[in-house]
Amino acid sequence: MRVLVLGATGGLGKALSRLLRGEEPFLSGRRAEPLRALAAEVGGKALPADLEDELEAKALLEEAGPLDLLLHAVGRAGRAGVQEVGRDGLEGMLAAHLLTAAFALKYARFRPGARAVFFGAYPAYVRVPGFGAYAAAKAALEAYLEVARKELRRQDVRLVLVRLPAVATGLWTPLGGPPKGALAPEEAARRVLEGVLREPPPEVLEL
Amino acid sequence: MRVLVLGATGGLGKALSRLLRGEEPFLSGRRAEPLRALAAEVGGKALPADLEDELEAKALLEEAGPLDLLLHAVGRAGRAGVQEVGRDGLEGMLAAHLLTAAFALKYARFRPGARAVFFGAYPAYVRVPGFGAYAAAKAALEAYLEVARKELRRQDVRLVLVRLPAVATGLWTPLGGPPKGALAPEEAARRVLEGVLREPPPEVLEL
Repeated sequence: MRVLVLGATGGLGKALSRLLRGEEPFLSGRRAEPLRALAAEVGGKALPADLEDELEAKALLEEAGPLDLLLHAVGRAGRAGVQEVGRDGLEGMLAAHLLTAAFALKYARFRPGARAVFFGAYPAYVRVPGFGAYAAAKAALEAYLEVARKELRRQDVRLVLVRLPAVATGLWTPLGGPPKGALAPEEAARRVLEGVLREPPPEVLEL
Repeated sequence: MRVLVLGATGGLGKALSRLLRGEEPFLSGRRAEPLRALAAEVGGKALPADLEDELEAKALLEEAGPLDLLLHAVGRAGRAGVQEVGRDGLEGMLAAHLLTAAFALKYARFRPGARAVFFGAYPAYVRVPGFGAYAAAKAALEAYLEVARKELRRQDVRLVLVRLPAVATGLWTPLGGPPKGALAPEEAARRVLEGVLREPPPEVLEL
């Protein structure tokens, strides 16, 4: 199975990468050093790239070649009220969630029966005060995937949207740490892989 | 009633402005000349501004002062497949729909009982091939408004999300014209105003 993990040095991406140890996965992320360490640990190949840069995203996807499984574990979080947040906060959040996913979909090549996996959000969990930009970015990603699924129907690639409860990763660091009851990243990754590798894979996987 | 129409020179904005003739509305848009002509026609005041520019948006909202009714009739449309669209196409669409709305919410001041009106979209109508960026931008706007409504609950301003069927405006020009059965802008504007001025106003108005 030819696998690419995007956001491999994030909490969820790292856990996914470790579970894919036997597949010699391609691992991508912005921070080259921790990425190389992870690749050495799991027997994968490090492909450092800033996915928010369209040219870097293109080069990365071309280098990875035709895939059986693409995991987009990219994102960020931040808290700001609608009367505080500015252009950079909004655009940065949209770039992290939507643009990186759009570039992955634009440039990835897939083998027959491949799966491409993206992480949305339960509206009830994220449409809360202080999370306007984050909620907007996740909603944008989910809508975009719905359209992409229709466009790519004939290409024999299955797009899977995963909704997870809170996962205890570094995503929460700017927010003061994960909420109580957050899932361990290892457990979240295990459930994600188990779900998306089902035959046939679900269009939406709610965990 | 102190009213500001954003996107006043667009098809829907113009129709709304004409219906608000008696209120001496503030009218804003990017194109100064047609804006001035419209302001002269309806007895309003032209405030040209590029709402995608945060500083211009701020200056505009400050000049308009405390409002009873804000109508955000701003947007654009375009068709591109997920394997064609690039950074500019995605960011431009998000700026037109989400950033302009976010800046309006950030800088507007409201009188007690005011209404702020934004235009979303029926997911089934817009999550179709070729409309990934548009669908994402509208989904982002709708999610953002849901958060904003919770944050602003104590400020005595009602946020109204309006979902319209297709309206026969210039928005469709880059797409080869409006679809059959599209609503005339005058009729759409009439239904919008009738709906949002109800007491109490609905949170979501589906027309």
